[in-house]
Amino acid sequence: MPNTVEKSRAVVLLSGGLDSATVLAIARDAGCECHCLSVDYGQRHRCELDAAAKVAAQLGAASHRTVSVDLRAIGGSALTDEIDVPKCRDERVMQADIPVTYVPARNMVFLSIAVGMAEVVGAGDVYVGVNAVDYSGYPDCRPEFIEAFARAAALATKAGVEGEGVGIRMPLVKLSKAEIIRAGTDLGVDYGPTVSCYDPDGAGLACGSCDSCVLRRRGFEAAGVDDPTRYRQGAL
Amino acid sequence: MPNTVEKSRAVVLLSGGLDSATVLAIARDAGCECHCLSVDYGQRHRCELDAAAKVAAQLGAASHRTVSVDLRAIGGSALTDEIDVPKCRDERVMQADIPVTYVPARNMVFLSIAVGMAEVVGAGDVYVGVNAVDYSGYPDCRPEFIEAFARAAALATKAGVEGEGVGIRMPLVKLSKAEIIRAGTDLGVDYGPTVSCYDPDGAGLACGSCDSCVLRRRGFEAAGVDDPTRYRQGAL
Repeated sequence: MPNTVEKSRAVVLLSGGLDSATVLAIARDAGCECHCLSVDYGQRHRCELDAAAKVAAQLGAASHRTVSVDLRAIGGSALTDEIDVPKCRDERVMQADIPVTYVPARNMVFLSIAVGMAEVVGAGDVYVGVNAVDYSGYPDCRPEFIEAFARAAALATKAGVEGEGVGIRMPLVKLSKAEIIRAGTDLGVDYGPTVSCYDPDGAGLACGSCDSCVLRRRGFEAAGVDDPTRYRQGAL
Repeated sequence: MPNTVEKSRAVVLLSGGLDSATVLAIARDAGCECHCLSVDYGQRHRCELDAAAKVAAQLGAASHRTVSVDLRAIGGSALTDEIDVPKCRDERVMQADIPVTYVPARNMVFLSIAVGMAEVVGAGDVYVGVNAVDYSGYPDCRPEFIEAFARAAALATKAGVEGEGVGIRMPLVKLSKAEIIRAGTDLGVDYGPTVSCYDPDGAGLACGSCDSCVLRRRGFEAAGVDDPTRYRQGAL
């Protein structure tokens, strides 16, 4: 374990989706040496993990590792259990509701593992792609949750005992989906390999109609950027 | 997922050690329906997991599940890596130092999974056996960390969006090891099956000389309770 923490070294949570790819590009642009972390949590859409590996390689990550945590063992989500993913929901419903795709405490678990990894690699910060604008209504994506978590994270490590602990960075928090896409496009992100769909097919092709597909497609439209998403036949 | 949270339903983090067995007995004595969670984190001392199952059964847990999270993938600890466990350390050294047995952010990861499980089973509280007196100097066992974590946990779930979120209970926080052992003994805990050793042999027999064995043995002495620990031959 390194004895010294480098502020310019970062752990980036990389899901394989659009947001976290943008976060990696932003952290790299800020001069960080980026160590990426993906989590295999028993998700049904495992093509995300392949996408994460491609994104890490494309965007010059210093390292990329995948940690397994079997959240299926606690259950309670359409993303890990055999529960149908809802389709074609109205945006007002999306915002009002906590959907069945919510995985209980998933973000909290991911952030906690990232804090542990930050300690091991000697990183000063964890970067995470939460945002408060176009989000799916998950409790642990809310900025007030992340801010409270950050106060705990600052105390959780050796560095936190001795002085300044691990910081949590949310560069997307105030951006709309369109702004995220524009920021990433300006930094050269190729969104082609990223996967946002909650219900992709075996080849990783997007359904076009789950909450995440809807938010993503509208984001590309609003950004005026060509949508490189590979949808399955008849999806749109 | 249950729609209603029952305050008398609890998730109890059960490591297989002495402290968490006592916590389970205390939560049961307080009238809780206890759903136990153990974590298989790639620890070298896997006999802990067998011990946890025995303790859950003995103390009348409503359920017990084990979630796997591969913390070996981030490394950095004698409890998951091939690093020697230190032996026969002076108590002052134990308190001053963060030892190599520290697993980065382990408690934070365990607590996060427990918060997710609390949401799934509809529990109002997570019980955890941290204490501030006879502890091994791990950053994420400090009460100030747990208190900060609790503020994040309260916001992390559906219940936390709607009103009162998951609480974190630390019934051992102000007890010495001897007081813990006396409390558990009064509640009928059989400490025989529990495993505290950081370096047990294949049969689960304790080394007698790691920090955890030393704290445990002194605790039984100070409590005036017969030590039921199974040490390996020549250990003492």
